[in-house]
Amino acid sequence: MAGGPIQATMMTMGLTLADILARAGRLFPEQEIVSRRPDKAIARQRFAQFHDRAHALKAALLRAGLAKGEAVATLMWNNAAHLEAYFGIPLAGGVLLTLNLRLHPDELGYIAGHAGAKTIIVDDILLPLALEIQKRTPIQRIIAVNWNKTVLPASVIDYETFIAGPWDTKIDPIAEGDAAVMCFTSGTTGKPKGVVYSHRAIVLHSFAIALPDVLAISHRSVILPVVPMFHANAWGEPFACAMLGAKLVLPGPHLDAESLLDLCQSERVTMTAGVPTVWLAVIRALDAEPARWPGLKGMRVLVGGSAAPESLLRDIARHGMVPAHGWGMTEMTPVGAIHSFKTKFDAASEDERFRHLSNQGLPLPLVETRIVNDAGEAPWDGKTVGELHVRGPFVAAAYHNQPDAADRWTEDGWFKTGDVAAIDADGYLKLTDRTKDLVKSGGEWISSVDLENAIMGHPAVVEAAVIAVKHPKWDERPLAAVVLKPGQSLDLAVLREFLAPKFPKYWLPDAMVAIDQIPRTATGKFQKSVLRERFKDWSWA
Amino acid sequence: MAGGPIQATMMTMGLTLADILARAGRLFPEQEIVSRRPDKAIARQRFAQFHDRAHALKAALLRAGLAKGEAVATLMWNNAAHLEAYFGIPLAGGVLLTLNLRLHPDELGYIAGHAGAKTIIVDDILLPLALEIQKRTPIQRIIAVNWNKTVLPASVIDYETFIAGPWDTKIDPIAEGDAAVMCFTSGTTGKPKGVVYSHRAIVLHSFAIALPDVLAISHRSVILPVVPMFHANAWGEPFACAMLGAKLVLPGPHLDAESLLDLCQSERVTMTAGVPTVWLAVIRALDAEPARWPGLKGMRVLVGGSAAPESLLRDIARHGMVPAHGWGMTEMTPVGAIHSFKTKFDAASEDERFRHLSNQGLPLPLVETRIVNDAGEAPWDGKTVGELHVRGPFVAAAYHNQPDAADRWTEDGWFKTGDVAAIDADGYLKLTDRTKDLVKSGGEWISSVDLENAIMGHPAVVEAAVIAVKHPKWDERPLAAVVLKPGQSLDLAVLREFLAPKFPKYWLPDAMVAIDQIPRTATGKFQKSVLRERFKDWSWA
Repeated sequence: MAGGPIQATMMTMGLTLADILARAGRLFPEQEIVSRRPDKAIARQRFAQFHDRAHALKAALLRAGLAKGEAVATLMWNNAAHLEAYFGIPLAGGVLLTLNLRLHPDELGYIAGHAGAKTIIVDDILLPLALEIQKRTPIQRIIAVNWNKTVLPASVIDYETFIAGPWDTKIDPIAEGDAAVMCFTSGTTGKPKGVVYSHRAIVLHSFAIALPDVLAISHRSVILPVVPMFHANAWGEPFACAMLGAKLVLPGPHLDAESLLDLCQSERVTMTAGVPTVWLAVIRALDAEPARWPGLKGMRVLVGGSAAPESLLRDIARHGMVPAHGWGMTEMTPVGAIHSFKTKFDAASEDERFRHLSNQGLPLPLVETRIVNDAGEAPWDGKTVGELHVRGPFVAAAYHNQPDAADRWTEDGWFKTGDVAAIDADGYLKLTDRTKDLVKSGGEWISSVDLENAIMGHPAVVEAAVIAVKHPKWDERPLAAVVLKPGQSLDLAVLREFLAPKFPKYWLPDAMVAIDQIPRTATGKFQKSVLRERFKDWSWA
Repeated sequence: MAGGPIQATMMTMGLTLADILARAGRLFPEQEIVSRRPDKAIARQRFAQFHDRAHALKAALLRAGLAKGEAVATLMWNNAAHLEAYFGIPLAGGVLLTLNLRLHPDELGYIAGHAGAKTIIVDDILLPLALEIQKRTPIQRIIAVNWNKTVLPASVIDYETFIAGPWDTKIDPIAEGDAAVMCFTSGTTGKPKGVVYSHRAIVLHSFAIALPDVLAISHRSVILPVVPMFHANAWGEPFACAMLGAKLVLPGPHLDAESLLDLCQSERVTMTAGVPTVWLAVIRALDAEPARWPGLKGMRVLVGGSAAPESLLRDIARHGMVPAHGWGMTEMTPVGAIHSFKTKFDAASEDERFRHLSNQGLPLPLVETRIVNDAGEAPWDGKTVGELHVRGPFVAAAYHNQPDAADRWTEDGWFKTGDVAAIDADGYLKLTDRTKDLVKSGGEWISSVDLENAIMGHPAVVEAAVIAVKHPKWDERPLAAVVLKPGQSLDLAVLREFLAPKFPKYWLPDAMVAIDQIPRTATGKFQKSVLRERFKDWSWA
């Protein structure tokens, strides 16, 4: 043909956080960011200020000599200043490194050192921890957001002083493949591993989670991420809310149920998101005072981070809120799938719908899924389980400087999630367990998560974890560690009777212990490795 | 820092139509595509079939020797076979060239020749036109979709015969920057100019239009694009619906109001989209038989392609449907902005809301806007007008092999839309005219579009166009060409009185002519160049 192959004629600019920040400032200057301060007072800021202050932080970091690709750590709760850091650091060419303040200082020191961070931005109330980290790392500069207007140590720079000075909206060239944000996975074994998100991955993820079938983020939305901004980007919500102009309500350090419910009601929150343990506490508060928060009707409550027990989803609905369920991983920027009902379920019974909602849902656009077991790639029949593999442009291809972790990827380029799952003919994903949490009994696999979620449906139970315990005959057998409601009792025989209609007989736990609380990881998930350690010498006698 | 700048660790696969087709087939195999056949019968197909048949077309084109980057033309109405071509051609490495069947064969011959197309896929009822085009071009192969099961000429290949044969889901490597689709702008002057969309541009555009504040496309949506798939990708809806799993209802050649309303009702359409002239006819049909289509309540009606008169938006709402308003250009893949109400308008009166809805709305994410006039870049005050410039990764940077059109782009890389507009402090775009349609009177600019839309609110008027006519004293003055309802009358004095409360006195038309119909371009827009030609010797005596 004349002139050879036809070439595309489109503009080729990259996908960067600069687009998101510019849109937030120009199209939604009056939109609000609400922050709960350490003293519980409410601070309000407009997107116009957020835009300007993010650029001021960018300019200040460049004046301070930030190098391209250099990590800048944050040690902060969910608040407006943290949001400024989400944009100011990457737009200065730096890499936002969010430190999980629930980790031990030794671990945080390892992370900051591994990333080479020399600067840390910190909420004043977290200064003691920052100083502990500094002892263990090459951190040279601590910048504190002085919420409480107290006198800072002489070695600490006041955030307002730091960002004062000239700034403009000019941004040095950023390629969409450049590093923007770095998060560490909170593995229960081994050293934490760093995932480095590109600008491109974050922009694509923001589009994907904003879709109507995912989180449905609009400039009419009011979104309260309970999930921390120091862990997996608060599921990407800060970026997507800035892009779409949604009001952000940031709870600061006040994550108790009462504070969260007050804030949801007073700010007319339309969607909130967090791990199951947060919502278990919220349900207890609502049950205790059912008339106190009438303003929550219709609010969407996204449960993620761990599989949601069906009883929790029902409890959310019972209080007039709309339960949503999803799944993700730090390695996926981080949302991988969100449940939404296809129209074929419109006629289903309430029971069927709740049962179905305990699936993790449909993968986001650009996320491919497959199930692989010893027999190869599994059919999408909703039954055949295997390890879930994923790939896509916002999935990690490696960890930062961690070549020994290459076994987490297959030779054909998929990420091995470590989750055991099945996929049905409609594409719905059903996670049954972590590979390492499965119970192998007499050659058969038992899902600890399915058992836990069923046990949590018992009226006497607050929460429960099921672990594998060595068994002389069956290799492993399930043990249920159960936290009971005050004044309630439960024994193994009653528990087995309660579970019997739902599971094959060999799935039923052979042991039950009542404990005070389930150990948690730094991100609020059940830390079953601690239970396995505690009960490793369990005697079946 | 140790190890140099931090590098992103994300997977780097490109954004291509392969992702969209794979998702459609795997996650939504049971979703429907409804096509109205030439004989008015309804044909139904599932996404599973669509997926397989698109791959079969891909395989057949490769067997037939399609070269990478070679154009394959379509001459088709909106139907399922056209959707297969939307994916099958680009996934074979070809470039989908949608021919506008309303153009003259000479013009279509120019377009097919300019693109170097050697193959054309055609609906059987359009075969006569295809044969006319073939006489004027290097087209070697005509493939006809035999809807009517008639005997095709011996030189024509049956589409079903063509795609029969082995296929698999393997796709030769496609880079996201590769050409996927080519559309020609239907300029009123000069030769048509080709815009070539990359895979990347189409994927990004699909995300952007699916957002809640834009077209809100879900797997629960049922979408009927009246806007043709042979023009500007039917506003991108076929691609986005495939990606999100929305049911598509394709009206074939039956675009009369009654056929469209029947289809919207029987298929429970949730959103339909087209140019104002389509909806003017629909409103007439609804007014004539108000009880005939009770099933349309709540259906969203998107008006685009030309500015929507406020009276039309009110008429849509009066019939219980939800009016939506947007703006785009072939050069923008093609949607640029869609109206959505910020919460600040929730308390506004109905009148204020309709007035506001006649704005074109907020630009999509990744679309940047600015207004430039003789004084430079205009403030966002909602008043200062100038030419609208846009840029972004789904905006064209050039036309195909048309270096003489480079003046449509600024030196700093923005596309000059040729639209006159203002932007307000909230970012809302208000188009006032095409630069070439403005009336320059006594040194002042008068918007022909504002006048037209106001005149169309007069109860005696079906539709109206305002053009500039040479004037000895004022340089130009506005002339109103008006189509009256049967049995109604209107004169200039009454018209001026009707308009007087809304406009400065010098804006009021100095002449009015009643005509039978407003001439249309091939895409249904007012073709004011024809009116200017007809009235160019207007005598003011």
